[in-house]
Amino acid sequence: MRLAFFGDVVGKPGRAAVLEHLPELRVRLRLDFVVVNGENAAGGFGLTRQIAEEFFGAGADCLTLGDHAWDQREALTYIEREPRLLRPLNYPVSAGAPGKGAELYMLPDGRRVGVVQLQGNVFMRQALACPFAAADAALDQMPLGTVADAVIVDMHCEATSEKMAMGHHCDGRASLVVGSHTHVPTADTMILNGGTAYQTDAGMCGDYDSVIGMQKEMSLYRFTTQLPGERYQPALGEGTLCGTFVETDDRTGLALRVEPIRMGGRLSAQVPAI
Amino acid sequence: MRLAFFGDVVGKPGRAAVLEHLPELRVRLRLDFVVVNGENAAGGFGLTRQIAEEFFGAGADCLTLGDHAWDQREALTYIEREPRLLRPLNYPVSAGAPGKGAELYMLPDGRRVGVVQLQGNVFMRQALACPFAAADAALDQMPLGTVADAVIVDMHCEATSEKMAMGHHCDGRASLVVGSHTHVPTADTMILNGGTAYQTDAGMCGDYDSVIGMQKEMSLYRFTTQLPGERYQPALGEGTLCGTFVETDDRTGLALRVEPIRMGGRLSAQVPAI
Amino acid sequence: MRLAFFGDVVGKPGRAAVLEHLPELRVRLRLDFVVVNGENAAGGFGLTRQIAEEFFGAGADCLTLGDHAWDQREALTYIEREPRLLRPLNYPVSAGAPGKGAELYMLPDGRRVGVVQLQGNVFMRQALACPFAAADAALDQMPLGTVADAVIVDMHCEATSEKMAMGHHCDGRASLVVGSHTHVPTADTMILNGGTAYQTDAGMCGDYDSVIGMQKEMSLYRFTTQLPGERYQPALGEGTLCGTFVETDDRTGLALRVEPIRMGGRLSAQVPAI
Amino acid sequence: MRLAFFGDVVGKPGRAAVLEHLPELRVRLRLDFVVVNGENAAGGFGLTRQIAEEFFGAGADCLTLGDHAWDQREALTYIEREPRLLRPLNYPVSAGAPGKGAELYMLPDGRRVGVVQLQGNVFMRQALACPFAAADAALDQMPLGTVADAVIVDMHCEATSEKMAMGHHCDGRASLVVGSHTHVPTADTMILNGGTAYQTDAGMCGDYDSVIGMQKEMSLYRFTTQLPGERYQPALGEGTLCGTFVETDDRTGLALRVEPIRMGGRLSAQVPAI
Ligand SMILES: [Fe+2]
Ligand SMILES: [Fe+2]
Ligand SMILES: [Fe+2]
Ligand SMILES: [Fe+2]
Ligand SMILES: [Fe+2]
Ligand SMILES: [Fe+2]
Ligand SMILES: [Fe+2]
Ligand SMILES: [Fe+2]
Repeated sequence: MRLAFFGDVVGKPGRAAVLEHLPELRVRLRLDFVVVNGENAAGGFGLTRQIAEEFFGAGADCLTLGDHAWDQREALTYIEREPRLLRPLNYPVSAGAPGKGAELYMLPDGRRVGVVQLQGNVFMRQALACPFAAADAALDQMPLGTVADAVIVDMHCEATSEKMAMGHHCDGRASLVVGSHTHVPTADTMILNGGTAYQTDAGMCGDYDSVIGMQKEMSLYRFTTQLPGERYQPALGEGTLCGTFVETDDRTGLALRVEPIRMGGRLSAQVPAI
Repeated sequence: MRLAFFGDVVGKPGRAAVLEHLPELRVRLRLDFVVVNGENAAGGFGLTRQIAEEFFGAGADCLTLGDHAWDQREALTYIEREPRLLRPLNYPVSAGAPGKGAELYMLPDGRRVGVVQLQGNVFMRQALACPFAAADAALDQMPLGTVADAVIVDMHCEATSEKMAMGHHCDGRASLVVGSHTHVPTADTMILNGGTAYQTDAGMCGDYDSVIGMQKEMSLYRFTTQLPGERYQPALGEGTLCGTFVETDDRTGLALRVEPIRMGGRLSAQVPAI
Repeated sequence: MRLAFFGDVVGKPGRAAVLEHLPELRVRLRLDFVVVNGENAAGGFGLTRQIAEEFFGAGADCLTLGDHAWDQREALTYIEREPRLLRPLNYPVSAGAPGKGAELYMLPDGRRVGVVQLQGNVFMRQALACPFAAADAALDQMPLGTVADAVIVDMHCEATSEKMAMGHHCDGRASLVVGSHTHVPTADTMILNGGTAYQTDAGMCGDYDSVIGMQKEMSLYRFTTQLPGERYQPALGEGTLCGTFVETDDRTGLALRVEPIRMGGRLSAQVPAI
Repeated sequence: MRLAFFGDVVGKPGRAAVLEHLPELRVRLRLDFVVVNGENAAGGFGLTRQIAEEFFGAGADCLTLGDHAWDQREALTYIEREPRLLRPLNYPVSAGAPGKGAELYMLPDGRRVGVVQLQGNVFMRQALACPFAAADAALDQMPLGTVADAVIVDMHCEATSEKMAMGHHCDGRASLVVGSHTHVPTADTMILNGGTAYQTDAGMCGDYDSVIGMQKEMSLYRFTTQLPGERYQPALGEGTLCGTFVETDDRTGLALRVEPIRMGGRLSAQVPAI
């Protein structure tokens, strides 16, 4: 199978990058399944139903969220009706968080792709349950190569250590473990010893002439003055689509190949050759 | 000029990667000045004089540190005698921290290269003075294109936002602003609007079959149990040399070209073509 | 002299406690100078001019703020015109923060009282300059016993360690070092070796049938679900006035006596006997 | 019943305060059950078997720990053999942490006292499972007034908000919810609406002429320089015994009375009158 994951979409330039490039990429890379992290799609803060539907229309099969999941309150109810939208799995059980954090999706041809979103606890605003134990529980429900033809894990967190640890923790049990949240793509795409493709962060889809997608002047004002300044707004230059491409072995679900995707905007372009 | 910066060297595999590749790279890329971040060179924790001298012998012109600067206590005294070793500049003035955080180095041919190390405050263990104000003060002492032929800023911190903000803050005043500390190279090398080359993190020099260079079993034990486990040890597989290459305009000191460097070990190789 | 400091006023019950008890206390304890921390007075978030004037009318001579200083944006301009309002002193110099963080006030009888507000950096949202160095600079401007007849330091921060360290740091140079921010009074009022009165936290003025002054249901919702819930609102039961009373030696400005003040609401009452 | 809880014992002065005062207090206050937090008893870092046995010998019925639980590695094995020693309950289930975090103890006369230790997640070094859910599970096993004659909850954490929230969360289900970890006693002992006694922090047993029990010079060195300095050592002046006394209603297990205990050293003395 051919899978792609795209990192945190930030504001209008991020949405435009997805809407412009994804339909064509889906064909060009013959993608079977596409996941997009949408936690910053609505003006930098959260996701609305309208934006989600645009992403589905452009070729996304599943959307993930993160610590900004509920910045748009409508997501709290929308997620209950939309099985293609996932939030971090590891909310405390007693939290009764709306929606789901892991799902096994059936493709038209019968193949099944599992998606799991986890949120780390190092340097994060919420204190969720152990993401490693949550990963175990979810992956037990969708054994790779038997129940699931492919499994994608979105590890949403700040610390590179927590992400790399999750990669190894899931190694051999997922097709891809890819990080989100830091809004910068990492150059460490590799296949781990057990056959799982890994990238510490897929990077954001947004304008890189910015501070993590937001207007740099606002961010610099806060960093240099420690005063509140104005509410952050997304930078509005051309966005870069950033993601990860994986090709799996149909028999095992493990990765045969993993490459970064970068299209448009400021970053150096990189599109896998098919 | 041709400059290179190499990220946090972690333990023996990181040192081996530097010692093996740097001499040859220095020739092949015709490097005029090389900076290496050595804060994790001694078993993952700090830097000793002996290791520093190996790096100088292999072609490093300047070594930087970070939050692990004093893990080896001998660094507190060694830095006072070794002007090629820098620690974060922005210790509080009243701290009387040993050594320096910025220096203008004279090359044999008379050209001058400034190096500044800053440490961010977001998610970091020490609370230092404002790195942005410190950058202003240091860059005022070494104006690019007049006093300094090139200026390299090592922004040592966790948050991508603080690093990107520093890139823009120094844009037009430095040849290169490059991040360190997260131990994962980013894929966002670019030249900012004002002519400064930028990369959010150069990545570590160390074994990437690990958790940020340390043995993955130990890290996973802590993440999954929250118990102390054993003292972290560096992973011992082949290290990857990770860094950033910049070519500057001799008249302005600004960047004409910036590219990542990756050699050996697990990550995909990338060496600038000259 | 007789001085009093009252901790963070939270919402309407906190304001009511101040307005109801302070005028009478000022007479009963023959207070010469009164400081009130007002950072949460406006619905739990920041301070308005109108509320500040109520406090001045009730007997406050000086108001301090903290990490919530600018939650009400009008404080950014109001503080420029109102010398009796102080914000944390240790904003980075380059920040150009409005207002002041230290002031020497002249009483009608000619005696002078210095007030300094500092904000700690451990576990705090802003990264300010070193509060210890800032304390040195401020106290140098108002030597106790010569230039200032009394000096009050409000150390606004989370960690008990940072507060106790500040107490010792200022010992002998201030009449009182008292903490704010945690919204719970501590039972450690004492006179340090050098003669400075000390209390780790004065406690809030607000309803203690709450979570740090805010409605407990809202707080419990967030803690148990890690979901956003509704915007915090102050609890509305009867507030407790919480503060610190100090009597100084007129010749030295050092403390002869220090006692907690607690009146009204849930906590056990304690009013110094005169 | 008459219960007492004593906060974090720090080093030799803390141990001396316990050993000197507890035997006499046990008689004078006719205490039925005594809990001591021992996480800093061994030189400030952790607990050894020898020290634990001294505490049992002096009248402690149960010892609790906290984030410093395993600073002395022998605690990892000792706790498996000593049912009177508890660590935070809410380690992730998959952690397999040694020992227990909640226990129902039988008194010689057949009465039963439950003790639960929880660790908060705000500003703490470990990321444990939700302490509120853990509290529910533990309290369900020892219903107050039927299965348990008294229940003591030690909420070990930094943030006053998390502690107050836990108080309300357990209100009506515990005899006492008392905080530890900040090493400063709070002056908010009260009986909550549902009948549970509450104090945000019991305070440490240790020398208060210090920074949270450790030598103030060392702490000030770190705060002012941000350099490592020497390893922290406990301050060695006379310690203050700090704790909480509760008298319960024998029929319900709820609190009839709650008062702080402070004996010796720097803080104002307070011993409940019987
Ligand atoms: Fe995020
Ligand atoms: Fe994001
Ligand atoms: Fe570092
Ligand atoms: Fe490092
Ligand atoms: Fe505050
Ligand atoms: Fe406050
Ligand atoms: Fe603790
Ligand atoms: Fe402690």
